[in-house]
Amino acid sequence: MADLALQYDEIPVGAILVYKNTLIAEAHNQPIKLNDPTAHAEMLCLRQAGKFLKNYRLNQTTLYVTLEPCAMCATAIMHARISRVVFGATDPKAGAMGGYLSIPEKLSHLHKNIDITSGIYAQENSEKLKSYFIQKRQKK
Amino acid sequence: MADLALQYDEIPVGAILVYKNTLIAEAHNQPIKLNDPTAHAEMLCLRQAGKFLKNYRLNQTTLYVTLEPCAMCATAIMHARISRVVFGATDPKAGAMGGYLSIPEKLSHLHKNIDITSGIYAQENSEKLKSYFIQKRQKK
Repeated sequence: MADLALQYDEIPVGAILVYKNTLIAEAHNQPIKLNDPTAHAEMLCLRQAGKFLKNYRLNQTTLYVTLEPCAMCATAIMHARISRVVFGATDPKAGAMGGYLSIPEKLSHLHKNIDITSGIYAQENSEKLKSYFIQKRQKK
Repeated sequence: MADLALQYDEIPVGAILVYKNTLIAEAHNQPIKLNDPTAHAEMLCLRQAGKFLKNYRLNQTTLYVTLEPCAMCATAIMHARISRVVFGATDPKAGAMGGYLSIPEKLSHLHKNIDITSGIYAQENSEKLKSYFIQKRQKK
């Protein structure tokens, strides 16, 4: 999914969402292509999953994402009551699951039992992002 | 727009978005109806406006919303580079423009020049929300 974002010249972030061991949503980051400032990979997964489950609450789901969610996505994850988040690279500039901010901690009154795992293929995901930004700066 | 949300039994929050004195988006809160955990009034306005302006950046726009944006919406507003936000009631439990958190302050490295005005028809908007929640509790 992150590689697909790269093909469209978007910041390479990808996400999938699993409900009881079944993949129910997958998306890549695409705000530019969709003219949608909210179209992060995670948000698109949440929206797909809501349609699939016919519910705005996504209990018993796990979201896998290559980069630490930003505060928009982290808050949406809390609103949706997602059970577990597994992410790759940490984002010290805008990550909102412990990297820069901790939205799950700040909003624990909304959703207490979220389980977070980080650092999965962190280096691989981080390097994909770094090389994208290096290339972007060279093009300018 | 907030009254329209009430008609659908959703939390009564409404928003509109103006670009250079022209209304280009309007929406009410509707996560339950749309099975979409991201479908706050502000987010729907941002998505409509992006489509209208054919851009994921919404420079020179003003968002008017009846309740202080949550951290999801506040972050989306920062990503979209919205120039000005005018909101009604403050939300001390989840507001992210100064009420509970301050996302514009935390993410000022993303978007420095956002102008925020609060307290417009605050009491009217706050009472609409309060009476909605009182009614909800009575129904249970």
